[in-house]
Amino acid sequence: MKALLKKEPGKGFTLENVEEPVIKNSDDVKIKILRTSICGTDVHIYEWNKWAEERIKTPQIGGHEFVGEVIEIGDNVKGLVPGDIVASETHIPCKVCYQCKTGNMHVCKDMQILGVDRDGVFAEYAVVPEIVLWKLDESIPLKYASVMEPLGNAIHTATATDLRAKHVLITGAGPIGAMAIQVAKASGAATIIVSEVSEYRINMAKEVGADLVINPSKENLYEKVMEFTGNHGADVLLEMSGNVTALNDGIKSVRNAGFVSILGVYNEEKIPFVMNTAVFKNLTIQAITGRKMFETWHIATQWLKYNRINIDKIVTHEIKMEDFEKGFELMMSGKSGKIVMKVSE
Amino acid sequence: MKALLKKEPGKGFTLENVEEPVIKNSDDVKIKILRTSICGTDVHIYEWNKWAEERIKTPQIGGHEFVGEVIEIGDNVKGLVPGDIVASETHIPCKVCYQCKTGNMHVCKDMQILGVDRDGVFAEYAVVPEIVLWKLDESIPLKYASVMEPLGNAIHTATATDLRAKHVLITGAGPIGAMAIQVAKASGAATIIVSEVSEYRINMAKEVGADLVINPSKENLYEKVMEFTGNHGADVLLEMSGNVTALNDGIKSVRNAGFVSILGVYNEEKIPFVMNTAVFKNLTIQAITGRKMFETWHIATQWLKYNRINIDKIVTHEIKMEDFEKGFELMMSGKSGKIVMKVSE
Amino acid sequence: MKALLKKEPGKGFTLENVEEPVIKNSDDVKIKILRTSICGTDVHIYEWNKWAEERIKTPQIGGHEFVGEVIEIGDNVKGLVPGDIVASETHIPCKVCYQCKTGNMHVCKDMQILGVDRDGVFAEYAVVPEIVLWKLDESIPLKYASVMEPLGNAIHTATATDLRAKHVLITGAGPIGAMAIQVAKASGAATIIVSEVSEYRINMAKEVGADLVINPSKENLYEKVMEFTGNHGADVLLEMSGNVTALNDGIKSVRNAGFVSILGVYNEEKIPFVMNTAVFKNLTIQAITGRKMFETWHIATQWLKYNRINIDKIVTHEIKMEDFEKGFELMMSGKSGKIVMKVSE
Amino acid sequence: MKALLKKEPGKGFTLENVEEPVIKNSDDVKIKILRTSICGTDVHIYEWNKWAEERIKTPQIGGHEFVGEVIEIGDNVKGLVPGDIVASETHIPCKVCYQCKTGNMHVCKDMQILGVDRDGVFAEYAVVPEIVLWKLDESIPLKYASVMEPLGNAIHTATATDLRAKHVLITGAGPIGAMAIQVAKASGAATIIVSEVSEYRINMAKEVGADLVINPSKENLYEKVMEFTGNHGADVLLEMSGNVTALNDGIKSVRNAGFVSILGVYNEEKIPFVMNTAVFKNLTIQAITGRKMFETWHIATQWLKYNRINIDKIVTHEIKMEDFEKGFELMMSGKSGKIVMKVSE
Repeated sequence: MKALLKKEPGKGFTLENVEEPVIKNSDDVKIKILRTSICGTDVHIYEWNKWAEERIKTPQIGGHEFVGEVIEIGDNVKGLVPGDIVASETHIPCKVCYQCKTGNMHVCKDMQILGVDRDGVFAEYAVVPEIVLWKLDESIPLKYASVMEPLGNAIHTATATDLRAKHVLITGAGPIGAMAIQVAKASGAATIIVSEVSEYRINMAKEVGADLVINPSKENLYEKVMEFTGNHGADVLLEMSGNVTALNDGIKSVRNAGFVSILGVYNEEKIPFVMNTAVFKNLTIQAITGRKMFETWHIATQWLKYNRINIDKIVTHEIKMEDFEKGFELMMSGKSGKIVMKVSE
Repeated sequence: MKALLKKEPGKGFTLENVEEPVIKNSDDVKIKILRTSICGTDVHIYEWNKWAEERIKTPQIGGHEFVGEVIEIGDNVKGLVPGDIVASETHIPCKVCYQCKTGNMHVCKDMQILGVDRDGVFAEYAVVPEIVLWKLDESIPLKYASVMEPLGNAIHTATATDLRAKHVLITGAGPIGAMAIQVAKASGAATIIVSEVSEYRINMAKEVGADLVINPSKENLYEKVMEFTGNHGADVLLEMSGNVTALNDGIKSVRNAGFVSILGVYNEEKIPFVMNTAVFKNLTIQAITGRKMFETWHIATQWLKYNRINIDKIVTHEIKMEDFEKGFELMMSGKSGKIVMKVSE
Repeated sequence: MKALLKKEPGKGFTLENVEEPVIKNSDDVKIKILRTSICGTDVHIYEWNKWAEERIKTPQIGGHEFVGEVIEIGDNVKGLVPGDIVASETHIPCKVCYQCKTGNMHVCKDMQILGVDRDGVFAEYAVVPEIVLWKLDESIPLKYASVMEPLGNAIHTATATDLRAKHVLITGAGPIGAMAIQVAKASGAATIIVSEVSEYRINMAKEVGADLVINPSKENLYEKVMEFTGNHGADVLLEMSGNVTALNDGIKSVRNAGFVSILGVYNEEKIPFVMNTAVFKNLTIQAITGRKMFETWHIATQWLKYNRINIDKIVTHEIKMEDFEKGFELMMSGKSGKIVMKVSE
Repeated sequence: MKALLKKEPGKGFTLENVEEPVIKNSDDVKIKILRTSICGTDVHIYEWNKWAEERIKTPQIGGHEFVGEVIEIGDNVKGLVPGDIVASETHIPCKVCYQCKTGNMHVCKDMQILGVDRDGVFAEYAVVPEIVLWKLDESIPLKYASVMEPLGNAIHTATATDLRAKHVLITGAGPIGAMAIQVAKASGAATIIVSEVSEYRINMAKEVGADLVINPSKENLYEKVMEFTGNHGADVLLEMSGNVTALNDGIKSVRNAGFVSILGVYNEEKIPFVMNTAVFKNLTIQAITGRKMFETWHIATQWLKYNRINIDKIVTHEIKMEDFEKGFELMMSGKSGKIVMKVSE
């Protein structure tokens, strides 16, 4: 089958013919990939940054976001049959550790990540265990289904607290930040304030519903938030930029007893953080990774099915998998939302 | 001043000239009533039902929902000045009991209710303690401001749990039930299913956004809910009818581990209730009274100010206080939403 | 192997030689039963009451509480090896329904119960799927391990809310109610008040730590609670009696904005319930069934391992499985706590 | 009256004769101070550190922890009468800001602190508004009553999450950390692990119930925690040291999806913090200041009244107010728990 392979350490992927994966365990499911999408993590692997160099073992197929069709199931698969359309959690849990046994499989102690710790889904076929698969309602378009994994990040971050009637500040309006705008809107936010420096993303943020977009390279974030909220401050901060200044200025802009949800990942192990400010404000900080399995997926499904959110302006490009280099270039330019690659019809 | 008085036991109110109330305590606030609205409780007092007969002492001015202007303040009033526009919580708390000291003033042990336990607000002026007053954003139209108290019931009931991506079943679409439709919509519900028997209210429910309205006098509620939700069941029941059958059939229609919020008040002290069903389903039941002081009021304000909810089709009539009899007749006919009475400009 | 069989409809069990169960699915685990204990449900099946007559299909092995040793595992079992000591959840979930996928396997839509819907564990061996097994810390004595399932009911009920510094009223002090006393004590309750009519159980309640035991056949429950709590009322009610009067008087004894957790199952489908009282008090009612898989089991394990609870006085009898008739008679007399039967060393 | 006065900028307090404060507002209460205790903040003011130099205006009476007797009340005081024994919240709220109106008076936007922003309670008399006073059960000894304010810090920090059956790691065992040990014990923790470097405090921690005390100047905190918990990690971290290394090593020692409660205040505005670790672990971090008014005070009262916690070994010294210099020296030596000063009988 065709697949995008990281053949050896170094930049790029190559389109190769590799062997089709086969079912090995009784709970495995073989899937024909229909669409797959490019994540920032894939870009790190493509670029072969320091993190990738230390983590990725070659040769390995890349990619983790996809929607596909079940074509074969192991003997012990109970909830799926061939023909089912599925999206997939990309964190493969061990099922037996404390976290897995108590509702937190997404932070399993022995987790493996698709396309990072094992072959991924930039390929015609993939085999994954049933435990990570999520059967989809057929009303959901394939291009949306492919990005339910990052949409799930936005939902996990934004559903960590009640947003009803809140002033919600989102720092960083990349694809997931932009999705969070739609999620906050659907969640009943009073207003959605966005902090973003890129013109492309500022426009995307406005198009998907931000009430105010602040460019912190030109304006003072704290002052603008206080002005816009009548000196109340943001009730909730959703930090999605991975930028330390955005985080600290965001914290400063949150009211006493407010809530902070952090999806961002930062460049350094230790970052200079305004902890005393958080303490004196009595803030609640929820650090976020992954998605709840499968509360988050259910929310994504229901909102897409019943048109409560609209991510059409965030899935900005659809290309063929063969044209992946164009896709990665676009991602690296910062002038795109999500890019979906067609693998099969 | 003019006021609607229950002069003596028996049906009706009379429009009388009575003495203006005066500030007695240092935390009292004198208010010029601008708009006041009619609640079901006022109708009970008007009709002089058994409950009213036992509870109400005459002579007493009726009414508890209003918006007004502060015209005089006691020496110890800190957050208001003459000219402020205010709505008011109608439950007057003692401020010193355990409930008052721990965030539950709305269920104060020694609570007094405006227009029930003391003179109300169907009048040109009223004096109430600062503790119950809520300063309003001037962007909110007076007719909406007057009904923020019952809107608060809808919000208190519907914010008892997260509604994001949920199938929400609302039993009873009187004015508060209709408000709850708007609240559930703003809260990110996947779908809103309403159960109602009155044609007038069925239409109102559809107009304000119900996705499905079931008339249980003609259709089987449980079956319709299961069909509409693909056999999932309602995730959440908001019981607003005070009807025992609606409550029990609602409970039956909720999925395992679902949530039930009950604002309804029932005709009998003990009602035949399907407790085992609740137990085997592991349901959470939140019984609701009043509004949170002042979390609920803040939510109402923000949503009205930023147009996240629209209650225009629920405030169906505006009349002069002098025409109160027409208002009470309309209320008793069941063919109205909220009725707002103008007292002053 | 030897097993207690309900051979045909009618009263009692018989000790029979039956075929050993075998592993059929790749996730099955074969267990040598070491201890098994008798539950009220087993008594209903023994007595062959109306519920049993309708639900149980004969021939079937009874029993669902046990501790055992893993002796064989299916190909796809990942978290257990022969020699492991295990207790077991008795609700066998489907793993694929909405409830199973979102952290509520214990109220799976297609749940099967051991010893009720399929062969149970009053036997030398049993085969159950890995998903229900809980590997035990070896420091926990076998007789405690066997009753971790009902202890889990007590924990699930009592951990539904924070009990720190609360006045906790427990109605019904059978074995699970008595366990709840220990659980409430470990949870930081200020005081534990028990309502119970049986002299045997009143004594057991006192021995395990009740601060006040009220016999409602002799005293007024509400008055005694108000007196003992300085007119504050109970903060929390744990209803474990299945008695309607206890439930309603308990509700009456709870303070405004209090919490009610109901594990009791009632004799009738609809019970006369004081719903208006719950509404005007703004109570939260959590209906409880089963145990959280496996949050509850983890709590039970930690508390037993670190001696934070002591259930020694609640496991009142240890007998051999062959003497089961003595055990059932004791249970029916009401003059016992939990009865554990030894099956193997 | 006698009072400990900071007469002018510089080190120390002086015992002076000053005028008795008088009731000025209708909600003021005049109190005869019975006991007062020394807090770390008082030590900062005594030492006249940089923070004190910037914040404190002289002349000002110091102190904020106390228990006293009501001797006079303003016209509008409703819940107290002369003779009542009271402790006091030291954060005086404005009562009208958003935080005050929605259950978070302790982080009022315009808060004043006793002994910091206005005259304190190292004096024979003080006048404070009724809103901060907490009427005490007379069963509580005066020396415990005086330290209910710092005990409240420990309770606020430790009640931010459920501790039942948890491994609780407390970094820093000064007086509040030591109180937190008792609180965690009362809250049903499985084990309490303490990190502390001072020998005096290590002994105090052991005496009040720590299951394991780690000295991070001699041992590796993370390794010891993992070893003691069987590689599970701490479920909860209570950071009470204000030490950055303790905080970061504590975070490292917490399991995935664990909880962190931070009362510590750090020396710098920005501290080097392991945010990515928190993100990948999906931790919840609750930053804590003050006490909930008055949920925390109620918990403290109930636990002291019913002897569920024992702080006798934490209140290590009782002296006369006249001997305050001895008290401050003891505090500065680090070889004391709480020091209570007697003002009147």
